[in-house]
Amino acid sequence: MHADHASTVTVTTPGGRYDIRIGGGLLADAASWQGLPAAAHAVIVSNPVVNALYGDALHSALSGAYPRVSRVLLPDGEAYKDWNSLNLVFDHLLAQGCDRKTVLFALGGGVVGDMAGFAAASYMRGVPFVQVPTTLLAQVDSSVGGKTAINHPLGKNMIGAFYQPARVVCDLATLATLPPRELSAGLAEVIKYGPIADMAFFDWIEAHIDALRAGDRAALAHAVRRSCEIKAEVVGQDERESGLRAILNFGHTFGHAIEAGMGYGAWLHGEGVGCGMVLASALSAELGLVPAAFVERVARLVERAGLPVQAPSMPGARWLELMRVDKKAEAGSIRFVLIEEPGRAAVRPAPDELVLRVIARHTAA
Amino acid sequence: MHADHASTVTVTTPGGRYDIRIGGGLLADAASWQGLPAAAHAVIVSNPVVNALYGDALHSALSGAYPRVSRVLLPDGEAYKDWNSLNLVFDHLLAQGCDRKTVLFALGGGVVGDMAGFAAASYMRGVPFVQVPTTLLAQVDSSVGGKTAINHPLGKNMIGAFYQPARVVCDLATLATLPPRELSAGLAEVIKYGPIADMAFFDWIEAHIDALRAGDRAALAHAVRRSCEIKAEVVGQDERESGLRAILNFGHTFGHAIEAGMGYGAWLHGEGVGCGMVLASALSAELGLVPAAFVERVARLVERAGLPVQAPSMPGARWLELMRVDKKAEAGSIRFVLIEEPGRAAVRPAPDELVLRVIARHTAA
Repeated sequence: MHADHASTVTVTTPGGRYDIRIGGGLLADAASWQGLPAAAHAVIVSNPVVNALYGDALHSALSGAYPRVSRVLLPDGEAYKDWNSLNLVFDHLLAQGCDRKTVLFALGGGVVGDMAGFAAASYMRGVPFVQVPTTLLAQVDSSVGGKTAINHPLGKNMIGAFYQPARVVCDLATLATLPPRELSAGLAEVIKYGPIADMAFFDWIEAHIDALRAGDRAALAHAVRRSCEIKAEVVGQDERESGLRAILNFGHTFGHAIEAGMGYGAWLHGEGVGCGMVLASALSAELGLVPAAFVERVARLVERAGLPVQAPSMPGARWLELMRVDKKAEAGSIRFVLIEEPGRAAVRPAPDELVLRVIARHTAA
Repeated sequence: MHADHASTVTVTTPGGRYDIRIGGGLLADAASWQGLPAAAHAVIVSNPVVNALYGDALHSALSGAYPRVSRVLLPDGEAYKDWNSLNLVFDHLLAQGCDRKTVLFALGGGVVGDMAGFAAASYMRGVPFVQVPTTLLAQVDSSVGGKTAINHPLGKNMIGAFYQPARVVCDLATLATLPPRELSAGLAEVIKYGPIADMAFFDWIEAHIDALRAGDRAALAHAVRRSCEIKAEVVGQDERESGLRAILNFGHTFGHAIEAGMGYGAWLHGEGVGCGMVLASALSAELGLVPAAFVERVARLVERAGLPVQAPSMPGARWLELMRVDKKAEAGSIRFVLIEEPGRAAVRPAPDELVLRVIARHTAA
């Protein structure tokens, strides 16, 4: 089997150099799994939904490269991205007598990738792992760059590690089975790369948003590749988010507050980010950085992607409390990724009253 | 206040370069805490016993360098080196609104250091931490080199990270309050450095074992410094235990099996290691690597240090099962740190029947 629309993006960080392979049909192609670290045992970490669709194909493909292949399934959804689920992986690895060379394969979306990645970072203080993202969100964002984590009741992604995968394999064919709501959620992270880094890409997304939502393979191939290129460029300059990398969190401070405030799972991560980008753009306009027309343009594309542009109703104090626990917050002041001019972002603090005014203006009555 | 018998050993690894400061009275000396990463908040992680003895002194000393200092206390003992205890640290950090710059101070023995270190490695994907070891075992071994972990019901230190501290501060004065049994347990890790790296140091320990057990400050200063020098040298060459570093686990494969088999806490870690070094030396002799007289010499020094030299009674199959889960095990074969000649060690597999014969010969009737 040969992959269609195939391309490779390379990520280079102090924590490792690895390839992102992008194409249709990569999962079942033995060539996708050659050249990885040798081991007696490969473990596929997935969830029941994705496993039913792609578990057997990956299992077969890996059987050529590893003497033993086993699977561990985690409950599906952001609400289960916690220690109990993580421990299912450790239980499996120890029960199977897995050693330090065991390679983990994260087959699924962002939740599976984050948990399998943190399990790999922590098991025996670190074993190799491979990201096999099957959602658009994971292909364009969460599987690239080595951020792994679980949630804590008091905050999202609060416990984790920077730990780079040995490879990322994005099979575009898996996007065909993605529910439309999840495809839209992934488009939020694609759209994100425009305002922070590349307005020509934003133009392209505007022109192809309908093709993307319809699952056009060529359009998706370009969107995934260009997103991965921008992410690889940013992560290569700042693996541990001491500066530049934070711009990738455009829309995320508002988005995380929405996700946590509404209860994990009520809003998808990408939905929170979509709405969050509108709020962050509006805050940038409020501070005089971008014109109101830019906010309109972002909101229009977010809406066309099938994402919410109105914030949910929460008391102002609750918004501030939820945003203050964000990892970008330091010593009390809330910091946001703001657009300094279309195509360029920076992290800046903003006064609480301005933030609350922007939220109020974008909340559904 | 000025430290007596003061010296500094520097550790250089890919994960960071940091100083180990050794001396009497360092804890209350403001100079010990200068030059660390700046932060709004310092958090002391300790246990109730150590906190009662040294918590206030460290708290005061840190108050000069950090606007806010708080403490979180973990239950005392290896049996509590688990996720529940670790989560107490995360709960505290999040409840206090601690950001990514917060510095953690591990005040206590190996259990506190391992847990505070893993908490620091994982909180918001990594915050700085400082080791302030108050036991001999922690000063000569566990606080140096960046190994952090918690236990899993199926194995010791199975979940953790390689994460280097920003500094290690060994206050020799804290050893004065150490119970004799714990001082002996620490001596096991001091003795360890002889057979694996430096027989002249082994000679010196033989000549000073009584002074060390009596708490002689000058003898302890030399033992801690020389141990840290050897450990720094080994860790500098192999931070992530891909090869050489494994020799630091001399006696540990047997020792971990004893600890786990008897129930964590029944045998102290150092007691398991003491007995384990006798077994590993005997296994080395059985394989023709060292003479029987060398085994006798190791056993004699272990005994004079106040440590057990007879293995506890466990079925052979249980021994093998417990040792097979050790992190050095790969694909089923059990590997041991063996002495190739006095002062030089290597990791080698050994046949099960030989291992069981050595255990049987060293088990109390």
